[in-house]
Amino acid sequence: MNRMEAFLILRRIPKIIPSLVVLGFFLLAVAVRAQEHTRSRDLGIPFDGMTGPLNAITDVKGVEVGNTTLILGDGQLKLGVGPVRTGVTAVFPRGKDLPEPVAAGWFTENGNGEMTGTTWVEESGLLEGPILITNTHSVGVVRDAVIAWRLKHGPQNESGYSWSLPVVAETWDGYLNDINGFHVKPEDVFHALDSAHGGAVEEGNVGGGTGMICNEFKGGIGSSSRLLDAKYGGYTVGVLVQCNYGQRDQLRIAGVPVAREIPGNNVWDDDVGSIIVVLATDAPLLPTQLRRLAKRVPLGLARDGSYSGNGSGDIFIAFSTANLGKAESKGVNQLDVLPNERMNPLFLATVQATEEAVVNAMIAAKTMTGVNGHTVIALPHDQLRKVLKKYNRLVK
Amino acid sequence: MNRMEAFLILRRIPKIIPSLVVLGFFLLAVAVRAQEHTRSRDLGIPFDGMTGPLNAITDVKGVEVGNTTLILGDGQLKLGVGPVRTGVTAVFPRGKDLPEPVAAGWFTENGNGEMTGTTWVEESGLLEGPILITNTHSVGVVRDAVIAWRLKHGPQNESGYSWSLPVVAETWDGYLNDINGFHVKPEDVFHALDSAHGGAVEEGNVGGGTGMICNEFKGGIGSSSRLLDAKYGGYTVGVLVQCNYGQRDQLRIAGVPVAREIPGNNVWDDDVGSIIVVLATDAPLLPTQLRRLAKRVPLGLARDGSYSGNGSGDIFIAFSTANLGKAESKGVNQLDVLPNERMNPLFLATVQATEEAVVNAMIAAKTMTGVNGHTVIALPHDQLRKVLKKYNRLVK
Amino acid sequence: MNRMEAFLILRRIPKIIPSLVVLGFFLLAVAVRAQEHTRSRDLGIPFDGMTGPLNAITDVKGVEVGNTTLILGDGQLKLGVGPVRTGVTAVFPRGKDLPEPVAAGWFTENGNGEMTGTTWVEESGLLEGPILITNTHSVGVVRDAVIAWRLKHGPQNESGYSWSLPVVAETWDGYLNDINGFHVKPEDVFHALDSAHGGAVEEGNVGGGTGMICNEFKGGIGSSSRLLDAKYGGYTVGVLVQCNYGQRDQLRIAGVPVAREIPGNNVWDDDVGSIIVVLATDAPLLPTQLRRLAKRVPLGLARDGSYSGNGSGDIFIAFSTANLGKAESKGVNQLDVLPNERMNPLFLATVQATEEAVVNAMIAAKTMTGVNGHTVIALPHDQLRKVLKKYNRLVK
Amino acid sequence: MNRMEAFLILRRIPKIIPSLVVLGFFLLAVAVRAQEHTRSRDLGIPFDGMTGPLNAITDVKGVEVGNTTLILGDGQLKLGVGPVRTGVTAVFPRGKDLPEPVAAGWFTENGNGEMTGTTWVEESGLLEGPILITNTHSVGVVRDAVIAWRLKHGPQNESGYSWSLPVVAETWDGYLNDINGFHVKPEDVFHALDSAHGGAVEEGNVGGGTGMICNEFKGGIGSSSRLLDAKYGGYTVGVLVQCNYGQRDQLRIAGVPVAREIPGNNVWDDDVGSIIVVLATDAPLLPTQLRRLAKRVPLGLARDGSYSGNGSGDIFIAFSTANLGKAESKGVNQLDVLPNERMNPLFLATVQATEEAVVNAMIAAKTMTGVNGHTVIALPHDQLRKVLKKYNRLVK
Repeated sequence: MNRMEAFLILRRIPKIIPSLVVLGFFLLAVAVRAQEHTRSRDLGIPFDGMTGPLNAITDVKGVEVGNTTLILGDGQLKLGVGPVRTGVTAVFPRGKDLPEPVAAGWFTENGNGEMTGTTWVEESGLLEGPILITNTHSVGVVRDAVIAWRLKHGPQNESGYSWSLPVVAETWDGYLNDINGFHVKPEDVFHALDSAHGGAVEEGNVGGGTGMICNEFKGGIGSSSRLLDAKYGGYTVGVLVQCNYGQRDQLRIAGVPVAREIPGNNVWDDDVGSIIVVLATDAPLLPTQLRRLAKRVPLGLARDGSYSGNGSGDIFIAFSTANLGKAESKGVNQLDVLPNERMNPLFLATVQATEEAVVNAMIAAKTMTGVNGHTVIALPHDQLRKVLKKYNRLVK
Repeated sequence: MNRMEAFLILRRIPKIIPSLVVLGFFLLAVAVRAQEHTRSRDLGIPFDGMTGPLNAITDVKGVEVGNTTLILGDGQLKLGVGPVRTGVTAVFPRGKDLPEPVAAGWFTENGNGEMTGTTWVEESGLLEGPILITNTHSVGVVRDAVIAWRLKHGPQNESGYSWSLPVVAETWDGYLNDINGFHVKPEDVFHALDSAHGGAVEEGNVGGGTGMICNEFKGGIGSSSRLLDAKYGGYTVGVLVQCNYGQRDQLRIAGVPVAREIPGNNVWDDDVGSIIVVLATDAPLLPTQLRRLAKRVPLGLARDGSYSGNGSGDIFIAFSTANLGKAESKGVNQLDVLPNERMNPLFLATVQATEEAVVNAMIAAKTMTGVNGHTVIALPHDQLRKVLKKYNRLVK
Repeated sequence: MNRMEAFLILRRIPKIIPSLVVLGFFLLAVAVRAQEHTRSRDLGIPFDGMTGPLNAITDVKGVEVGNTTLILGDGQLKLGVGPVRTGVTAVFPRGKDLPEPVAAGWFTENGNGEMTGTTWVEESGLLEGPILITNTHSVGVVRDAVIAWRLKHGPQNESGYSWSLPVVAETWDGYLNDINGFHVKPEDVFHALDSAHGGAVEEGNVGGGTGMICNEFKGGIGSSSRLLDAKYGGYTVGVLVQCNYGQRDQLRIAGVPVAREIPGNNVWDDDVGSIIVVLATDAPLLPTQLRRLAKRVPLGLARDGSYSGNGSGDIFIAFSTANLGKAESKGVNQLDVLPNERMNPLFLATVQATEEAVVNAMIAAKTMTGVNGHTVIALPHDQLRKVLKKYNRLVK
Repeated sequence: MNRMEAFLILRRIPKIIPSLVVLGFFLLAVAVRAQEHTRSRDLGIPFDGMTGPLNAITDVKGVEVGNTTLILGDGQLKLGVGPVRTGVTAVFPRGKDLPEPVAAGWFTENGNGEMTGTTWVEESGLLEGPILITNTHSVGVVRDAVIAWRLKHGPQNESGYSWSLPVVAETWDGYLNDINGFHVKPEDVFHALDSAHGGAVEEGNVGGGTGMICNEFKGGIGSSSRLLDAKYGGYTVGVLVQCNYGQRDQLRIAGVPVAREIPGNNVWDDDVGSIIVVLATDAPLLPTQLRRLAKRVPLGLARDGSYSGNGSGDIFIAFSTANLGKAESKGVNQLDVLPNERMNPLFLATVQATEEAVVNAMIAAKTMTGVNGHTVIALPHDQLRKVLKKYNRLVK
């Protein structure tokens, strides 16, 4: 029984165990885990640009990430029983205790997916709550649970509408997970929200990314960041991906089509799956400008070899944590706004952080076996290094 | 105890009562109800254009509509208990037994609302399942239940993806309904889907429209249709609305700002709320052309006085039932397509049917009292006629 | 020989006559003309809302409008000779001496038309120069001439790009004008720009609107404004239209389908033509919010009976004159921004001012005969009053 | 005096020289030129996918390309005199003698540019005439000249509207060309249109691409194609670019950041400029599907290192030559349509052909000196090969 199976069992037992204890247990687990996984740069993969201290979305001050990881059972699929390989990831723009909206924009490169709440994000230019990511068939339960969590944590604003249109995105994990068993429950959503924290971000087989597949290797959650030079404002751009897209022979790392020289263990022979990208920055940007950042995300994915297949839900949302305290609904707000002429370093940072976050997800992910014994292997680190060396692209 | 309270109680009793009996009971109730409500033209309100036989969305062959109406309790709000004034409305483009996709397009005039699944509708140009409408805080449960219903009714297609991105829309009924009590359950969704039928469409306080308010009078579900002259192809355009928008002093019927002369009983003094519009046609149109129809919906609402306030989720989806059997995923399909040059009569029909469907919803709706004794009056038929007569606009 | 024929002849004579004299002559003519035409409210047509002092787009401080009107020749069409019934209208957001950009957004209800420069307006959220309106086949000459005019009036900004992507829109006047004769010349564009001024706005058969047709009556340029109550911020919304759209039997004024009772003299039996709308406000709005205003323009047109036919280029641009001096390309700008929650009065003002500007254009326009003796009659004022009286809608 | 200077002089002489002779002269010149330039694959640069026979947009049957190249004068800038380094490129979807519309879609990755006519392309889903590309300040003259050319070549269609909304795009050549001298004239447009032909496509310093700069090396016109395997339908995707974008240290060829190892001769230190991409296919696609192809163009550019800077007008248009004879304005058309499920090979072909077309433009372009002695060097072939070899990416 692994740690996550334990969680599932704990979830079912009486609520007499103080939730504080459970929370402490998980924060500890998270802290341990956060240090244990390998990252792209550990392997000598070259990337451009300067990262923030954590090389993660949490380098943007205030951003918090929480996960619930559900792993239970093995063997043949029994609908509603398992095997379970799924979860929920939550990203709070200003931390879980500060419900103030942030400016936001979104973009979709290929829309075979769902991100609820985007109609209002686009209309208002604001993101009013956290962003959640889960599997395709659990978007609904997660969405309503976000509203319920908000109600538990304080009164609605006077209009009664706040957080009524949650942002929840998905990718499909049915190859490894009993997706039609609807295993994600409201308490799993509450846990992902309650456990959100700053600091290092878990990567690989965690949260919404638990059962995901990327370029026919094991995928999942990945993150990266870029810190702009002081002459460009010293802003940070952070990216978190739930990657589940891609065709193996298209995968490029550091410009090299590496997987063509790593044979075997293909999952399918097409671009199936999706990728959700959350982008955070502290640069003071308008909604239109944040949409422009979101439009650069596919350029980063393209460097990794994506051609955004028909089956892919490639949906991206970008927000700015600037302008805190300037979202009053009365009077006139004074917003700091970066001129368009100063956006190029942010565009480049977006491309670079996206490119790296996907590779980080794949490097952190571990081989997983799920429903009906389906196994998806992790990208083999040693073989990857060997190919990069052949093309003179290894930096250590 | 009214009929709908009966339903709620029935829902909780053991499943030993054959569902066939329950279904029969409700089909009967539906049939009776469908004939009992008043429609705009009964009151002598003038509208342009020729309607189909039912003057409803079901004039488009194949379209089926089902409702679950949840009305329970009175008095002070007890969270999770009631009073309940809500429901679910389902619209099947090709009937509930034919899951073949239809061409579709969507448009939003003001996006303070939710319609899930639209990212894929826009990308693919297809609507793959039914359209559901409910209250704002129940979109999630309805969404996942649509997937579950599909799984119960047959295997997924080979890709495993079909119906994974359901289209579910909402408007907000918290003035009359215990919206934070999350009263809509999966079985309510199944019932709306299972009970969908052709023929007359229920209007007023039914289905998703149960607790809705329109122009500060009681709103809800409304429908209308237009039949094109044979020289324009003889096509039908049908509209179904769940109307919950509008400010009383802006309401115009037949061009007359009628409500300014019907004083009292205002609910609020702003344009609060939303409207969801589903448009069906049998004209053979491409997705881009269907989006063009959806863009004419606001022109019909404007004739009724809408200025699409900031709080409004005005979201519209249009589909075509033509090209049956031509959505194969292999080979090349041969689609019938109407030239753009022939679309004008469809544009005009869209404007006219939308204008009338909203008024039909208001005319059919009955005064309702909900949470904390909030009462919303129906648009008083006699006073309306009096005002129209004053402006020489009454036609009978 | 009328005043405009004089202008055409003057245009061809040697440039030794100081342009100052010419300018003076025209400013005088403009001043006289501005007072001579009838407006909708003079006829007792009821409209909602409070107008600004001029009831014109120039009620928004800084906005200047200039026209060049080209009327020459009669009788049979001789390609390149005439008859000429066309022109150019220019709108400067901040006056012709202040090239600072304004925040802007645009929207198209039906895109059978052209508005150049909108790709950059949408990307940047800024409008960098004036807006020009002319006939369909002269968009190019006007566009390049705007760049040339800018070059004559001062150096480019350091990037060399400023005003390189002019905004020029059009509607089609080929029923009355020798449109394929390409009669608009660069000097006509310069004149419209140089003669731009605040104060009353010319309406009817002037500028780009000279040869236009609206609802099968004579159309052209029209304007209107709304002044918000102080409790809503006291902002102004101004609208200028070049109207050339519409089908006679759809025309509604004050909610009454008036033209059905004004028989005869139809031009065609379809919704042919287009409408360009320029919207100005001094409310401090973001580009996304200005786009939201532009999306309300069709709601105003719908009140006048538009269903936005397939042949129509219904293209709208909205800008804000607020935030003067805050478009620096270096550093960080501090922008005043109105919250979304305060936009409703602006939405309603947009609908109302648009509704009235179209009627103002039609009321001001005079019967015109153009190529091949084609005659388009003005909307007959007396018959209009008669119909409105019948429906109890006349207010004086 | 070179060939192009000769053309400029010829242009000014009396029209008594039969245009047939001039045409013959240029067709010969074109034929010679078409064989003389180097292409990427000649240098051993590796690309994925199978090309068509010409590896050019003209592999799509019916597509014709014509150029007018204007090169005149040297030395200091004299406004209106020169030096001139500019031109016009024309692309006919069905050849210059067949004005039948094609299905089309467009997309912009960054909109600091102009492509006229796109509002109608998006609304109608159709491209009605040729696509023209020129410099930024000549878009107007080219636009109106396209209408004039159409009028010379036959009557308008009965509506009188055809080709009234030409598609004309631009990139900025003011570093080498006297762009404010407005040197492109209507006859230059006519020549580009009249000289359009199938077969090999001129690349490098020709047509609209004459004065363009790409990644701070000499840019211009480039083309490439991909031929799908028979099992995917055997369709062709062809791409033509006018490339003028990019920052040198971002340039990647075959995944290698080559220019970082080719020092010196930088033009600027930013991502300035733009790229226009025209994509043709014979696959039977709907407008929405063609837009999906256009959305994959940036993925190809990203492989070359683009991050789509703020100053860039990255605008792409895609059309399908299928469904010939099925654009009737009466009745109902029967269109062949490829299912979305079969689009992946077209997406990948788009990415690959775009990636290669840009490199082809740079490889074909030759070092050019323009206004004020500004010199832009061609990408040095030998140094490029050297760097690719270092990274084990040279294929011959």
